[in-house]
Amino acid sequence: MVFRSHMDQALAEARAAGARGEVPVGAVIVAPDGRVVAAAGNRTRETCDPTAHAEIVALRAACAAAGSERLVGHDLYVTLEPCAMCAAALAAARIRRVYYGAADPKSGGVAHGARVFSHPQAHHAPEVYDGIGGEAAAELLRGFFAERRDTGNRNGGES
Amino acid sequence: MVFRSHMDQALAEARAAGARGEVPVGAVIVAPDGRVVAAAGNRTRETCDPTAHAEIVALRAACAAAGSERLVGHDLYVTLEPCAMCAAALAAARIRRVYYGAADPKSGGVAHGARVFSHPQAHHAPEVYDGIGGEAAAELLRGFFAERRDTGNRNGGES
Repeated sequence: MVFRSHMDQALAEARAAGARGEVPVGAVIVAPDGRVVAAAGNRTRETCDPTAHAEIVALRAACAAAGSERLVGHDLYVTLEPCAMCAAALAAARIRRVYYGAADPKSGGVAHGARVFSHPQAHHAPEVYDGIGGEAAAELLRGFFAERRDTGNRNGGES
Repeated sequence: MVFRSHMDQALAEARAAGARGEVPVGAVIVAPDGRVVAAAGNRTRETCDPTAHAEIVALRAACAAAGSERLVGHDLYVTLEPCAMCAAALAAARIRRVYYGAADPKSGGVAHGARVFSHPQAHHAPEVYDGIGGEAAAELLRGFFAERRDTGNRNGGES
């Protein structure tokens, strides 16, 4: 199924992020015609930018390519539940559907905590589909943090 | 008082943003030693970037200058209550204090809606001081939207 291959691409971005020493999260944005218009992994450490979560990096690239701050009809696939920052950015961009993998009780802002889409201040609430490829995404994160704990080098989550 | 002059600088950034056709919101980031390390206005339209709110533009610039994704001990002055996206970004960057001007019941995410700092998923909650220069900030926004309504060119809020 198409959505599975998009999530596979997001997982590949997550793995590549982990290999760069970033928290392994990846995202893909798909245009209404099915084209992948952006794919990115987390780059907060590399760029010293706390906003460079996978979703934001992909969103900025897709908006730049489209020449628009809104991506009406576009869908986003991300390996981990978006945090409040990313959820609000996706709402601002009018993303149509958000497919995410693993739940994130610690830092999530869609099904946890701020639940950004559930307030009228979001102006737009994407349709949300969770749990797609969630086990693979969660396993990537577990492996990443277990390795960092083993080397005494843990530095918190993606937060 | 010092904080008043910082908010005056944020208001000047807001006015400059309005003159560029952007929703007039401005922000300033101040280092622990009192230096202004970033000042920015909203640039979402110019850059086709829905994440380019004044707070995010300033945050990215200050982090790049500091070579760090965290700005411990830094304070942010912004003319309008931050939205959920900006609030979560400020928490992620460990901003110490947030001083804001006008309340934003329509799109705010600090005292309204998602109330991002009130959930443990934010990991860090800046001290918040509201209403500083709020009337001037609100007047700027009212003037901007009134003019756009008059010209039949309104395009929503900063959201």
